[in-house]
Amino acid sequence: MSKRVLFLLLATAASSFAQTQPAPRPARPAMPPAIVSPEVASDGHVTFRFRDPNAHEVLLALEGSKPVAMQKDDQGMWTITIGPLDPDFYGYSLIADGVPLVDPSNWMMKPNLLFKQSEVHVPGPSSLPWEVNDVPHGELQHHFYKSGVVGDKRDYYVYTPPSYDPRGTTKYPVLYLLHGFSDMASGWSEVGRANIILDNLIAEGKAKPMLVVMPLGYGAPEIVTRGFAGFGDTVLRDRNFDKFREALLTEVIPQVEKEYLVSKDRGSRAIAGLSMGGAESLLTGLNNLDKFAWIGAFSSGGLPEDFAAAFPSLDSNANAKLRVLWIACGTEDGLIGVNRRFREWLKSKGINHTDIETPGMHTWMVWRRNLSNFAPLLFR
Amino acid sequence: MSKRVLFLLLATAASSFAQTQPAPRPARPAMPPAIVSPEVASDGHVTFRFRDPNAHEVLLALEGSKPVAMQKDDQGMWTITIGPLDPDFYGYSLIADGVPLVDPSNWMMKPNLLFKQSEVHVPGPSSLPWEVNDVPHGELQHHFYKSGVVGDKRDYYVYTPPSYDPRGTTKYPVLYLLHGFSDMASGWSEVGRANIILDNLIAEGKAKPMLVVMPLGYGAPEIVTRGFAGFGDTVLRDRNFDKFREALLTEVIPQVEKEYLVSKDRGSRAIAGLSMGGAESLLTGLNNLDKFAWIGAFSSGGLPEDFAAAFPSLDSNANAKLRVLWIACGTEDGLIGVNRRFREWLKSKGINHTDIETPGMHTWMVWRRNLSNFAPLLFR
Repeated sequence: MSKRVLFLLLATAASSFAQTQPAPRPARPAMPPAIVSPEVASDGHVTFRFRDPNAHEVLLALEGSKPVAMQKDDQGMWTITIGPLDPDFYGYSLIADGVPLVDPSNWMMKPNLLFKQSEVHVPGPSSLPWEVNDVPHGELQHHFYKSGVVGDKRDYYVYTPPSYDPRGTTKYPVLYLLHGFSDMASGWSEVGRANIILDNLIAEGKAKPMLVVMPLGYGAPEIVTRGFAGFGDTVLRDRNFDKFREALLTEVIPQVEKEYLVSKDRGSRAIAGLSMGGAESLLTGLNNLDKFAWIGAFSSGGLPEDFAAAFPSLDSNANAKLRVLWIACGTEDGLIGVNRRFREWLKSKGINHTDIETPGMHTWMVWRRNLSNFAPLLFR
Repeated sequence: MSKRVLFLLLATAASSFAQTQPAPRPARPAMPPAIVSPEVASDGHVTFRFRDPNAHEVLLALEGSKPVAMQKDDQGMWTITIGPLDPDFYGYSLIADGVPLVDPSNWMMKPNLLFKQSEVHVPGPSSLPWEVNDVPHGELQHHFYKSGVVGDKRDYYVYTPPSYDPRGTTKYPVLYLLHGFSDMASGWSEVGRANIILDNLIAEGKAKPMLVVMPLGYGAPEIVTRGFAGFGDTVLRDRNFDKFREALLTEVIPQVEKEYLVSKDRGSRAIAGLSMGGAESLLTGLNNLDKFAWIGAFSSGGLPEDFAAAFPSLDSNANAKLRVLWIACGTEDGLIGVNRRFREWLKSKGINHTDIETPGMHTWMVWRRNLSNFAPLLFR
């Protein structure tokens, strides 16, 4: 996104409020000196800084790493340098005396309903699919609607590829791409950089031009207001899955297929998602093979362990319908076990699928790579 | 936006990490007890809570108010109850020992390149134009492009009204709506709720259906990376204005008029903005009356004080071209002086305009009302 491109070096905050101050602002305390955090060195080392003169302990919690202690100087500034890190985007929190905070010196955020974090970009070569390159860019369209199924106002995003022309005649296939528990509908675009990844894959000819629809993934929104306790309530979780599926099939897909130039056959519909969205992709996709021919599940979480009950009519007849069933998980992810058990069950049923195990934990670094490897397989 | 609607009561964060934890997470420290902040009572009182056991002072800085001290209990919890507040959206920071922080218990944010804040919604009646009502909703489309004028990748948002049909024949007028210094291109939609406001005004028949184009407002992006010192550098600021105008006129407007069904006559183009964007609206609009017939400036900031030099060819002949010139500012805004001087200068030149002075400081509460009152005047 342009704002990322423009301001990656932005960390030199306002240094004074002189006559140029365009607005009344809080008079006290005085603006602290500009703090640069994070500071990314060209070799991939990253320095984080946080002023908190009275804290007893400040930890840096980087996505995919264990928290590490920062060091305090006599000015009350906590600092740590880590790395070198591989080029990527990483979420992080500063945990000050037990409270996870976003970095006040960094505008880049990972929006999230429960665990918002700051974000740092370690730039890499243009071959990395999440880097903004000099290629044609698609658009992201944000839709708002009233859901009769759930009984609320909700939203979804639609990525249209650069070649999409609403006044033309070319129809496109659609990937329905689902976020994880605690994400907002913006998760896959804002954090997962799905639009950037598709721009790059399409420009290189690696992926077919397609629409990507990213709906809000909660069928029972109270599952989030109750936090992880909500996700642990299996009755609520099952209702969340059921109502999500119903909202997707009876509200979102019909709206998309009415408004956009898209092909409406099952061979032109894919569904994939991460964590909770991975489980939703399997539950919705494998139980509706008349509607989806391509299914992906990244680090699925929340799958009912009674697979036979969750997929009552699934058997090897599915092989004739499934073009891709792609099941990925990081080997250091706590969910690797249930994913392996599910793959074993699929094998026992004679259902063809692709097993993907990669290094990594339950992180966006894994899921951006998953999408980058999954999207090229679609609609071939 | 749906996420606001869905989760306004969201503040009961995760209370425990049991077996249901879907991912490895930092092992220490233990998740603190759920903190509800902000808590909005039905009478408009709002309670803020923040755990920081070792801070010496924590202030609540609410948008439009002076910071006030929070009180600490023996558990390290800082608390304050304020109000009753008028129904509105308010930005706020928690200033802990001099460092402005976003509220870790609140997912609602005011994104900003220099001063990101948390946000609290005090709900009000459906007659308030920024409340999400049961009316048809338009779409927000996010565009990305490479600017030859500025030499970067950048973005703009386009609101299309509910009746807009890209495959139809109806053409619409366009309001170009500009954000302020330190905002991102998302400022008017994410914080200003421009799409919600237009949805409501159009549904009530108060505003004509129109597109609203919200571009990134920096012609010289380094003005932001340098913070307020950048905005105080008048050479840089003038270049920022010049290059913004050039990018708008030669890049954004042609792209919009190529892609969308819009009328291309001056009577179908309006330009308005807040603070820096107000100055940009005046500098771009009044110097290009062949392109814009409707101009609004809300709390303009950064206008060159040599008005005659900034508007060299402006005289009372403009009256025949200007359909609306609407200049608003809050009476407690530090910029009221320059806005009054500018209006006096317009009067001395015999240029008709509408003077709007309202209660309020340099805040989004003022600007949401400005937009709600300005948009109905357009394209009549």
